[in-house]
Amino acid sequence: MGELRLASNGSSPQRLVSVQAALAPFLRFVTESVWASRHESPDVCDFVFGNPSEPPLVPFVEALHRSVIPGNVQWYGYKWSEPGAQEVIARTLRKRTGLPFEPADICMTNGAYAAISVTLRAILESGDEVVFLRPPWFFYEALIVAYEGRAVRVSIDDNTFDLDLNAIAAAITPRTRAVIVNSPHNPTGKIYRPETLAALASLLAAASARHGRRIFILSDEAYSRIVFDGAACHSPAEFYPDTFVIYTYAKTLLTPGQRIGYVALPPQMMDRDRLRLDLLTAQLVTGFAFPNALLQHALAELEDLSLDLEHLQRKRDGLVGALRSIGYDVHVPEGTFYLLPRAPGGDDVRFCERLEGVDVFCLPGTVVELPGYFRISLTANDEMIARALPRFAAAFQA
Amino acid sequence: MGELRLASNGSSPQRLVSVQAALAPFLRFVTESVWASRHESPDVCDFVFGNPSEPPLVPFVEALHRSVIPGNVQWYGYKWSEPGAQEVIARTLRKRTGLPFEPADICMTNGAYAAISVTLRAILESGDEVVFLRPPWFFYEALIVAYEGRAVRVSIDDNTFDLDLNAIAAAITPRTRAVIVNSPHNPTGKIYRPETLAALASLLAAASARHGRRIFILSDEAYSRIVFDGAACHSPAEFYPDTFVIYTYAKTLLTPGQRIGYVALPPQMMDRDRLRLDLLTAQLVTGFAFPNALLQHALAELEDLSLDLEHLQRKRDGLVGALRSIGYDVHVPEGTFYLLPRAPGGDDVRFCERLEGVDVFCLPGTVVELPGYFRISLTANDEMIARALPRFAAAFQA
Repeated sequence: MGELRLASNGSSPQRLVSVQAALAPFLRFVTESVWASRHESPDVCDFVFGNPSEPPLVPFVEALHRSVIPGNVQWYGYKWSEPGAQEVIARTLRKRTGLPFEPADICMTNGAYAAISVTLRAILESGDEVVFLRPPWFFYEALIVAYEGRAVRVSIDDNTFDLDLNAIAAAITPRTRAVIVNSPHNPTGKIYRPETLAALASLLAAASARHGRRIFILSDEAYSRIVFDGAACHSPAEFYPDTFVIYTYAKTLLTPGQRIGYVALPPQMMDRDRLRLDLLTAQLVTGFAFPNALLQHALAELEDLSLDLEHLQRKRDGLVGALRSIGYDVHVPEGTFYLLPRAPGGDDVRFCERLEGVDVFCLPGTVVELPGYFRISLTANDEMIARALPRFAAAFQA
Repeated sequence: MGELRLASNGSSPQRLVSVQAALAPFLRFVTESVWASRHESPDVCDFVFGNPSEPPLVPFVEALHRSVIPGNVQWYGYKWSEPGAQEVIARTLRKRTGLPFEPADICMTNGAYAAISVTLRAILESGDEVVFLRPPWFFYEALIVAYEGRAVRVSIDDNTFDLDLNAIAAAITPRTRAVIVNSPHNPTGKIYRPETLAALASLLAAASARHGRRIFILSDEAYSRIVFDGAACHSPAEFYPDTFVIYTYAKTLLTPGQRIGYVALPPQMMDRDRLRLDLLTAQLVTGFAFPNALLQHALAELEDLSLDLEHLQRKRDGLVGALRSIGYDVHVPEGTFYLLPRAPGGDDVRFCERLEGVDVFCLPGTVVELPGYFRISLTANDEMIARALPRFAAAFQA
């Protein structure tokens, strides 16, 4: 994407300019950084994104291979949410949350990115406020702006990486329509505890009642199955009925280029008929945001697959130990596939440049509004991690 | 989708209500019609949508089957527009149009629906007017409204089904941002002639100059390869530089559930750097509207495939002849896979109900703003067509 020029957007539509402003740190990084020009060079150690560095799961490839073979003449015909896929997911969510999710309340989407897009489109009035957490996923603000909302940042607790409930409460106004929660949280790896989610639920229920307007939770659960030490990851839906449960298989299977996910409406959510219609409408006009036929046919097989969590945990533990022994200040994430060391010297951009000097690429925290830290993706393979360690040491000592 | 209730959208966001109003004829048809409840019953003859009624193309399945096997560790990693796919398409467009299309100017999307969505998002200021033709594809108006535009209808010539250039000229105002052209045209099957496209180009160039603002053509070329009698189908891009060429493989391969397509910027289009960035931004916030990895890997193979056009033409000719011999008034389409007979008696809704009485389902023209006609999809198989003919006769005589 190196040939894009970010400066020359003189006569772009006004809303798109706002979207581009929100995306600028990301777009600049992926189009203009040293990483952009060098990350595919030999010998480079690339820890920037959660991209695969090992062959895809064999059973994933086998499932697609089997599902390619048409089972009927409509195999590749128009697909919205396929009943078979909805059934499988409702069963999983019932088991996971204990709530009696209904298949009809599962809206199949082409990934979580699309799921967040269509949910925002389905619920936002122009000017509605959406609270999201800093540090955020790259795209929350851009999506909120794109769907006519106002993006309201609330920082997580700097010390514990936990939700700052007082700050969330303080950010809510009569125009608040939704709060985006992401647990396990990218990039801190924090899993919010049941008691925290229960307190958030009380707070939002009280605010909804006070303002006479439902405040929804958009629960981005992309990493809900990427947890360490057998940790439990609870959904806000267990505590708050007005929660859109959003999931993608892209993290669990490490296949972000083959997109399938969903928005699920919990059974206690009121007015689900209308919300389902609103989501369907939003899916239609968001470029037909349904997953491809092949992935829906394969879903029953994909549901039970996962990247090797034990291997991921060994990488986490090995790298945390090695970085600490070099002298890095790094905490132990409970989930996701990211480490988040503090940048030695405090300037993450400058420190990442120093790493670039030894052909190691990490994401500067500044790109996700978390200056002072840098993000390492544990999706790198063992060989790359081993190759990088002396370079992490060299950069630390430089 | 039978359980959706269209009436209860009391507190949906305002823009979504407008979108739903635009979608109402379609949504009502697919959720509340007799077709909705009965089209999968045995013995039914379903001519409503361009959906497959025969097994998918064997080389299509083989291409996917081959492409499922990972060629590298990033096979299912993040994909935007894959250079290999861009190359193939640029080559095809060069050959087809004679214009030196550049690979970098091909934005890969998950189908034409997404391509139209992201193009509208990339170019529309709130309140901009978009001219589209009546009878339209189901979703143009909803998309225009969803992307903050004002939908301006212009009827085609009732007798020739050709563009009515005077009516288009009369519809243009200083707020006009784009004209959507669809050739071959769904549902009339009309292919616009080079001289008509040249006249449209002059008209739009003059209007752009007069108002000091570029008017774009969105050229929906979904059916550009579904042409009969070896007819040539020219792109407006050959005549007008500010044309977004929009294509999907879903019609040519008859695989609407497996979505890949593109927006291509012609080489004479000014300001392509900025427009590419605007399209990329639009793709990101339109739910990551890029095609899946598998389809991009397979694209070089898919590019040369097509449903059996000779067979389709035999179905067209056989059905036109048979319907005419019954007494139906039906013209011979030049492209697309639709026939468009006049409804005997003039009331298409009532006549389609009569057909439903003998288990034949067609699309009432009223659903696409063309009362007095009904649409028959030639994607039905020979057996279904043969089975339907006596019923078409019975309904005609009833």
